Amino acid sequence: MNKNSSNKMALAPNTSNKRETVCIFGTGDFGRALGHKMIQSGYPVVFGSRSAQTSSLIPKDAEVLSHAEAAQKAAIIIIAVQRQHYNFLTPLAEILHGKVLVDVSNNLKINQYPESNAEYLAQLVPGAKVVKAFNTVSAWALQSGTLDASRQVFVCGDDMEAKQMVMDIVRALGLTPLDKGSLLAAQEIENYPLQLFPMWKFPILLSLGLTAFFFFYCLIRDVIYPYVYENKDFSFFIAISIPNRICPILALILLALVYLPGVLAAVIQLYRGTKYRRFPDWLDKWMLCRKQLGLVALAFASLHVLYTLVIPIRSFVRWRISSRIVSQALNNKTEPLNTTNAWLSDSYLALGILGFFLFVLLGITSLPSVSNNVNWREFRFVQSKLGYLTLILCTAHTLVYGGNRFLSPSSYRWYLPNAYMLSLIVPCIVLVAKFVLIFPCLDKPLTQIRQGWERKPQYSE
Amino acid sequence: MNKNSSNKMALAPNTSNKRETVCIFGTGDFGRALGHKMIQSGYPVVFGSRSAQTSSLIPKDAEVLSHAEAAQKAAIIIIAVQRQHYNFLTPLAEILHGKVLVDVSNNLKINQYPESNAEYLAQLVPGAKVVKAFNTVSAWALQSGTLDASRQVFVCGDDMEAKQMVMDIVRALGLTPLDKGSLLAAQEIENYPLQLFPMWKFPILLSLGLTAFFFFYCLIRDVIYPYVYENKDFSFFIAISIPNRICPILALILLALVYLPGVLAAVIQLYRGTKYRRFPDWLDKWMLCRKQLGLVALAFASLHVLYTLVIPIRSFVRWRISSRIVSQALNNKTEPLNTTNAWLSDSYLALGILGFFLFVLLGITSLPSVSNNVNWREFRFVQSKLGYLTLILCTAHTLVYGGNRFLSPSSYRWYLPNAYMLSLIVPCIVLVAKFVLIFPCLDKPLTQIRQGWERKPQYSE
Amino acid sequence: MNKNSSNKMALAPNTSNKRETVCIFGTGDFGRALGHKMIQSGYPVVFGSRSAQTSSLIPKDAEVLSHAEAAQKAAIIIIAVQRQHYNFLTPLAEILHGKVLVDVSNNLKINQYPESNAEYLAQLVPGAKVVKAFNTVSAWALQSGTLDASRQVFVCGDDMEAKQMVMDIVRALGLTPLDKGSLLAAQEIENYPLQLFPMWKFPILLSLGLTAFFFFYCLIRDVIYPYVYENKDFSFFIAISIPNRICPILALILLALVYLPGVLAAVIQLYRGTKYRRFPDWLDKWMLCRKQLGLVALAFASLHVLYTLVIPIRSFVRWRISSRIVSQALNNKTEPLNTTNAWLSDSYLALGILGFFLFVLLGITSLPSVSNNVNWREFRFVQSKLGYLTLILCTAHTLVYGGNRFLSPSSYRWYLPNAYMLSLIVPCIVLVAKFVLIFPCLDKPLTQIRQGWERKPQYSE
Repeated sequence: MNKNSSNKMALAPNTSNKRETVCIFGTGDFGRALGHKMIQSGYPVVFGSRSAQTSSLIPKDAEVLSHAEAAQKAAIIIIAVQRQHYNFLTPLAEILHGKVLVDVSNNLKINQYPESNAEYLAQLVPGAKVVKAFNTVSAWALQSGTLDASRQVFVCGDDMEAKQMVMDIVRALGLTPLDKGSLLAAQEIENYPLQLFPMWKFPILLSLGLTAFFFFYCLIRDVIYPYVYENKDFSFFIAISIPNRICPILALILLALVYLPGVLAAVIQLYRGTKYRRFPDWLDKWMLCRKQLGLVALAFASLHVLYTLVIPIRSFVRWRISSRIVSQALNNKTEPLNTTNAWLSDSYLALGILGFFLFVLLGITSLPSVSNNVNWREFRFVQSKLGYLTLILCTAHTLVYGGNRFLSPSSYRWYLPNAYMLSLIVPCIVLVAKFVLIFPCLDKPLTQIRQGWERKPQYSE
Repeated sequence: MNKNSSNKMALAPNTSNKRETVCIFGTGDFGRALGHKMIQSGYPVVFGSRSAQTSSLIPKDAEVLSHAEAAQKAAIIIIAVQRQHYNFLTPLAEILHGKVLVDVSNNLKINQYPESNAEYLAQLVPGAKVVKAFNTVSAWALQSGTLDASRQVFVCGDDMEAKQMVMDIVRALGLTPLDKGSLLAAQEIENYPLQLFPMWKFPILLSLGLTAFFFFYCLIRDVIYPYVYENKDFSFFIAISIPNRICPILALILLALVYLPGVLAAVIQLYRGTKYRRFPDWLDKWMLCRKQLGLVALAFASLHVLYTLVIPIRSFVRWRISSRIVSQALNNKTEPLNTTNAWLSDSYLALGILGFFLFVLLGITSLPSVSNNVNWREFRFVQSKLGYLTLILCTAHTLVYGGNRFLSPSSYRWYLPNAYMLSLIVPCIVLVAKFVLIFPCLDKPLTQIRQGWERKPQYSE
Repeated sequence: MNKNSSNKMALAPNTSNKRETVCIFGTGDFGRALGHKMIQSGYPVVFGSRSAQTSSLIPKDAEVLSHAEAAQKAAIIIIAVQRQHYNFLTPLAEILHGKVLVDVSNNLKINQYPESNAEYLAQLVPGAKVVKAFNTVSAWALQSGTLDASRQVFVCGDDMEAKQMVMDIVRALGLTPLDKGSLLAAQEIENYPLQLFPMWKFPILLSLGLTAFFFFYCLIRDVIYPYVYENKDFSFFIAISIPNRICPILALILLALVYLPGVLAAVIQLYRGTKYRRFPDWLDKWMLCRKQLGLVALAFASLHVLYTLVIPIRSFVRWRISSRIVSQALNNKTEPLNTTNAWLSDSYLALGILGFFLFVLLGITSLPSVSNNVNWREFRFVQSKLGYLTLILCTAHTLVYGGNRFLSPSSYRWYLPNAYMLSLIVPCIVLVAKFVLIFPCLDKPLTQIRQGWERKPQYSE
């Protein structure tokens, strides 16, 4: 929150002396925006342009010269042109010798070129010190001053001193430089702004698919069935009742899917007798998005909690309860307390509360700033021990919720079992498999394999 | 959490050899506290003082010498005196030549002097390498060892090596140095500890004002009106019922105010036909505190959720429900299920739950550690797409809540409409304006303008 | 979340040229895992081994040579052997002169040796530049590529350039280096991965003890007493009712224990008349784990909220309410609204909601990434002002909950007061003491003492 104010500070006039001139090649939108911002932060700016005539769009305090003249005025030259036009720099090689060239370019596709733009630039002008920076910042954000998004600017380059100079400019503009090492990191830095939640695609598609399936499943059982057989209109179940069936089911299945790949990996390693062979590709990808799967599961669990807690203020529920009480009063009978029911109801709620509580704890520890403060041993403890405890509690919650309804024939409409029964399949498999893997006769060889031991060492050669 | 323990580690005796002597000018409270801490961390400490006689307050293991003698014993000299007394350093210029001077001073007001204290120090002793550091740490925190607050120490300076030396000391004391670049950053670093949530002032004042207005509005409608006309004492509404009206109203209005400046900015840019003119000052400031406005709105939304969920355990609500059921039973009639009401009630709750859920997601992505892991494209996607979806859901939640009461005369007491109707004005304006701006005839020129195109380029020259 | 993908990037073939050869001494599990990962990231790897014969486990693309031959091929040598075997390096001292030696070792116990492994290594090979790194990464995580835990690699060393080289390798492997300063930090870095939530031990043990005590206390009062005297089976209270008594009690007591040490410290300082004497050890430790105490208290408060909100959907509660309504209907009487009860019920709920809301705010500001964005003044404001307000609200919540039951004889079963009465003792002591300390006659000298003033300065010499 204070970052914004620090930004304002940097614009204060008293910091406007002493800065060294910066040259910008290219008078396109990004070059102009960067120039504007630099002038505001007290840097004298010189634009290098083909035409060398002042365009009306260029900030007034900036000079516009030919490329060669502009380059001679500054030690740092920002190359704000597109990669396709980089070859205009070749004739300038002599003037650019020893200068710091800042590559700010982005591509349109991930891994568009065999080498990164910055590395290509370094090849074109071998005498210059190339630094990659600023590509993650948008011209619009620079201009409007409303940098609410990440203020991190990734910087990489082979020359330490050149990198320091660029990082100082980044700081002066009110942004936070992050040193990503040598110029080899440029490819990664150039790919970064093109991603849109890459790790989230699979978990979200999977949960959308499952949501659609369970929605129609519940629609058939809970809305269409009573309409056909009892001619009752329960279409309003679509708003809360059915979502409150889907959410816990998805939360449970997705949570189990977080722990399934670990179990599969253990089985594969036990079967192969070595850890030195790569897992199948799908398993690798699955393992990489476990955190995202878990967070989507947590989202569904949170929705389930909210949907459950509003139950008593639903108009339908109030009607059902009051009509039941009225009929009791009219029939002049009072029900005694059914202790078994009280036990079932309370323990199923308690298990759900504890499971959700641990689930939220898991979610909090997966926040970047929290997991950075936790060492490997602590992280393993939380994610593995607490994670399995959460899975056990949530599965138990569902089992107790089922209670004595599992075998009741009324649970099967059109031979379709209650949806929650389907949700128990995956978690039960995971828990049983994990339970089996804990036995010493399996746990011991697995530990040995993970420490590097091999059953049949011949094939790895 | 492990930071605390790392602090303990640094005090362990086995690290107490090898450190280089540090000199501290000034035996005031902060100088002594820093000296204490450095001795604990294994640094030999020499105090430079006017009187050169050991005071009882100075740590026992430290030497106290004259300024000149003390300065000669160390490569790093911490200037723990106030800016007004810096001129005693001028005669020492020769001895201080080449030394690292650490400016730890703070001011009483933001931007108190034209240049920062550290820059002033650098002017006074031109031969020394001035580094700004430690000004964000309090003497009390250093002394008591309970550094629960931020352990970040901002460091800036023009000499890389001097900065590294100071950063090593910072680390040795169990704190985290943060390189803020050259000495130009000193002004900002000196202003930093004087701020008290500067970006939060406007959102909090605004919400306090709106809260007061809506409190009295609801008091008149819900407590005074029934007291005057029906002689009923509903004063206890002040505890929950009225807050539960105010909270959702403020959440909705503030959320709409987050998106209003963006719409205004687009209108201004379309009207002006350029992006190269600054927005009016109030709009700039408004845009800078959108995140804070959103978070205050989220706080009100969370309170609304809590207030709503306790409804069924309120004594008044239980009484109302039971007396309604008893009267039904006594009148010997059972109400049939009103499907329309069930639909309205359920869909209004479902919209609220989904809106709140997305709102919490927005809040989580605004956590610094999360938004740092998100690139510009992803941030835009979350804050703009998800943000508008949240606004739409919350507005729909309020509209459906109103349901068929909008035109009912009972909603107007003393010609005052229900408070929630007032809350709909701003969000509806924002949504309609945004909807209009999406039309290609407006969206296209706007995109062009934001890419640097100008309708009347003459004026900018 | 993007970190994972950046990891994938680093494995792309186009970055596999240009890297400098790295030598690894030791072909154990960690050495091999690191070698695998480095080869994947494009580093030519040479293993130095006693036997110098290729083992089947060693990555195929790596060479295996004798120690001396391998060392000559690379500027960076990773020492992946255990500390006990370091003495094989002494005869190689000449070859290792000027090389960068990376110590990756860990110990089995905290502070196992008088000096850290890295410092021991630096003593053994005085001509080499020793850098400590990689000890916080596990071989299993490196191999499986699923580095979901912290990607931070702590790096320390006395030679800046050597440290930079190692940090570049760390970045190339997709990890985040964190410069911890000179080699003196090695001890702390080596202790780090051995910790398991050291600051949480005391708060968790304390809360487990208190939980056990209050569980049996409530069991006697709420389950055994009615069973003995009224022969009623309320054993199902164990699931929700009793936890929902224990949770608020523990939340309140632990929250008060967060503020008690501050009050005690003030009293001790006032009594001693100085701040220059260390607090007793137990008070120091207590103060260091206040954050953890507060977070455990918040966990209990959250559970209390969840347990409370499910009350209306508990089977027992529904039965109790409906049987009460039925008996009212059968007795043909309607209760009038009891305004006092409505006031008590609503204000107790409202106090609880506000208290919990502030408590959650306190918890959010204690997230590392948030507290890092807050300066000392802001942190003090939140933790002290908001903290005390939370304590006041929560204590008031409990007092109003008690309402007029404090003196009712039915509250005392077997002479045991209601459990919530016990929970009020500590918070009331803290609030009264704090209230007394605010009086100017005590606040003034305390402020002076904290600014360094002493009542009897003689003893400190």
